[in-house]
Amino acid sequence: MSNPKPSNVTAAVLLIGDEVLTGRTKDANLSHIANVLGEIGINVAEARVVQDVEERIVDAINALRNNYDYVFTTGGIGPTHDDITADCVAAAFGVGIGPHAEAYRRLEAHYAQADVEFNAARQRMTRIPHGAELIDNPVSAAPGFYIENVFVMAGIPKIMQAMLDGILSKLKGGEQMQSVTITGNIPEGTIADRMEVLQKNHDNVSIGLYPYYIAGSAGVSVVARSTDQGLLDKLAHEIAKHIQEVGGAVVERPEK
Amino acid sequence: MSNPKPSNVTAAVLLIGDEVLTGRTKDANLSHIANVLGEIGINVAEARVVQDVEERIVDAINALRNNYDYVFTTGGIGPTHDDITADCVAAAFGVGIGPHAEAYRRLEAHYAQADVEFNAARQRMTRIPHGAELIDNPVSAAPGFYIENVFVMAGIPKIMQAMLDGILSKLKGGEQMQSVTITGNIPEGTIADRMEVLQKNHDNVSIGLYPYYIAGSAGVSVVARSTDQGLLDKLAHEIAKHIQEVGGAVVERPEK
Repeated sequence: MSNPKPSNVTAAVLLIGDEVLTGRTKDANLSHIANVLGEIGINVAEARVVQDVEERIVDAINALRNNYDYVFTTGGIGPTHDDITADCVAAAFGVGIGPHAEAYRRLEAHYAQADVEFNAARQRMTRIPHGAELIDNPVSAAPGFYIENVFVMAGIPKIMQAMLDGILSKLKGGEQMQSVTITGNIPEGTIADRMEVLQKNHDNVSIGLYPYYIAGSAGVSVVARSTDQGLLDKLAHEIAKHIQEVGGAVVERPEK
Repeated sequence: MSNPKPSNVTAAVLLIGDEVLTGRTKDANLSHIANVLGEIGINVAEARVVQDVEERIVDAINALRNNYDYVFTTGGIGPTHDDITADCVAAAFGVGIGPHAEAYRRLEAHYAQADVEFNAARQRMTRIPHGAELIDNPVSAAPGFYIENVFVMAGIPKIMQAMLDGILSKLKGGEQMQSVTITGNIPEGTIADRMEVLQKNHDNVSIGLYPYYIAGSAGVSVVARSTDQGLLDKLAHEIAKHIQEVGGAVVERPEK
């Protein structure tokens, strides 16, 4: 946990579909998107997971696109009856939706080459909100799309990752966030007051404490984030000194 | 992905803190909460992840507690400067907050026994919104709390899991959701039309399709969810038959 002060360009991630909500699977898309965007200085400031319910999806898209610079959605753009993301995006923007000529061409060619029937279900994937631009899908052809600041991607991690790679050049990142992590073999409560003072004295740094309890012993990772690497190097020394002054030692954080 | 029709008692999960948002860690709490609640017939219908920013946390709590039967939060109740969840819950409910006598007693005893200083930072963890009831923490003493339909738990998985176990008896579950999963070695687009008809013919079942692409071959898991196990057994046969009729076979879903 940390304060968001150093954030500059912000994004929200909207995961659509109940695979994660039912506990069937642990989501892998959020951390991937956060890592990739972080590298170009875009700070994922919020994430939501919603079921395939039109009202919930529309409300989430509208709330997030007004609050953040970018919105990235995953899921719900396949050929089945529960794939309603494109319709929800159109509804959120108040635009129409219909077959997109280029999307149709790509999918028709893809299925012809694979000798697979381009049936009605698969043709659903050519329906794109009016005014949206396509996002390439090098894995399975069916494109994502973006409209204003909302980027709509597939839910399957491999496809989502390829789509994200393809749109990075269209995004305007901020200053890249750097971080240092110093882990001490002491409970967070032992160092909390010192870290609070350190945070108060450095407005342009975000200091977060991540405690752990493993095999009965407590420890804490202190993570400082800032766009100023020189300042972080200085703070890393100070944090290590604080850990030692309260009787602890700097250690590797245990894996689990 | 599936329709939410069979939902009965609903819950939202609010993960507080930026550990997941920065991509540092993959969240483990959501799937655990979803699984445990699912077993007592509570359907997690939405999840959000927000940074430690008061306005965002308060807005999320108020939106979720009005939309769902229960809200479960994790994170932000430790001893450090960035632990602001209790204050945000108090603000969301428009109540005061202050040291809670029983929470103070528990923590004082805990730290005395451990021969650790019960310092100002640790005393922060005794601040509980007025009118809230405590949630026991058998791991590290510092309690969670609940107020109306909002349950506030720690972010460390081991502690969160213990807290959740302790409050289950206070929750009123619905009919328990059952599910069957049938995986076919065919692309989802091949069976999408048949599954749409099946969904339309069964209002009290939610049918979701979860495609995968592994080592170049496509497959799909069809998941049917309902409170009626007899109906699911019947549908499992029908879905398998559909998979075979389009030229596929029922298979085990590959791991990755």
